[in-house]
Amino acid sequence: MLKLYFTPNTCALASHIALEQAGAAYEAVKIDFAKDEQRQAAYLAVNPKARVPALATARGILTETPAILVFIAQSYPKAGLAPLDDPFALAEVQAFNSYLCSTVHVAHAHRMRGTRWSDDPVTIDGMKRGAPKSVAAAFSLIEDGLLKGPWVMGADYSICDAYLFTLAQWLEADGVDTAKLPRVIDHRRRMEALPAVRKALAAEV
Amino acid sequence: MLKLYFTPNTCALASHIALEQAGAAYEAVKIDFAKDEQRQAAYLAVNPKARVPALATARGILTETPAILVFIAQSYPKAGLAPLDDPFALAEVQAFNSYLCSTVHVAHAHRMRGTRWSDDPVTIDGMKRGAPKSVAAAFSLIEDGLLKGPWVMGADYSICDAYLFTLAQWLEADGVDTAKLPRVIDHRRRMEALPAVRKALAAEV
Repeated sequence: MLKLYFTPNTCALASHIALEQAGAAYEAVKIDFAKDEQRQAAYLAVNPKARVPALATARGILTETPAILVFIAQSYPKAGLAPLDDPFALAEVQAFNSYLCSTVHVAHAHRMRGTRWSDDPVTIDGMKRGAPKSVAAAFSLIEDGLLKGPWVMGADYSICDAYLFTLAQWLEADGVDTAKLPRVIDHRRRMEALPAVRKALAAEV
Repeated sequence: MLKLYFTPNTCALASHIALEQAGAAYEAVKIDFAKDEQRQAAYLAVNPKARVPALATARGILTETPAILVFIAQSYPKAGLAPLDDPFALAEVQAFNSYLCSTVHVAHAHRMRGTRWSDDPVTIDGMKRGAPKSVAAAFSLIEDGLLKGPWVMGADYSICDAYLFTLAQWLEADGVDTAKLPRVIDHRRRMEALPAVRKALAAEV
């Protein structure tokens, strides 16, 4: 059985939602950041990066949200979570998810995890102050076109939607003016209503 | 014909190498960062993110290195650039490339592109000072295991190799002690000797 290592309020939620939507048999294992469990030997043996999510499979461990999401989509093709038979459309899915992990999530991380890039408290505080502007800029691009509507890729729901919904959870805490992102917020509202999303959120308490 | 928009000394090199290795018919179009061409209307119409690479295809534009690389691998399956028929192995490829774009490249970008995350000169300077340590930490994980050897994914060459080689170009300028990364440096040396790599590098002058 698949095992998803997650921490509440992290990007692991995207994989959690996708597993629900795939109808996968899986166990969700909570890693408590408050207890620094991600840096203890037991978890470092699972993921030496000391991050979540990680997905334990019969073949081994997978990490990195974009990789886990496409693995779930490919392993449960009947769930229709990605355009698996169309290399260009699948590349568009990957491009969106890659933008989320390398630009959107990274902008957000400057508020919460500045120690990744500096030991200096003044620099870390400066990064925190910069986050609202860079997160807002990253989401503007989504608002203005990357989110085709009604779903990220247009008519068809995909793994991009679970991932966008996950990162959009943090907008208010990041100090972004959500009034300027009506399409993103409408997407978030429609995602919240999906049974799989409600189930994943309820399991992450 | 495919059109690759690139700038020398950027991560676009990975896609350039992959196109060569795929035997693709393509044109390489240089975007001059020194002239700020990436922020001019002509290029923003190609890629509103104002970044390279972008790949113009018959179906539309693709951005983000991990997405472009897997698109090339899927479009030219005979080149054998990724384990396309094995979802787990392909997810391992995606996980490695996702780590490169969201952790390794981002650590490097704190030296060169701090304005992405702050307007404050003191913070930008602090980010620059932090880069050697965070880039070194990110590459340590590659050295210690993510790079299986002889190629990233083990016996078989893949798109991961072109991408790792590209980011490893910047180690010395990032102030990383390469003596601690013998496997990464050996990989870089073997990559440099490949005809496709030499051709792509020569075309990026």
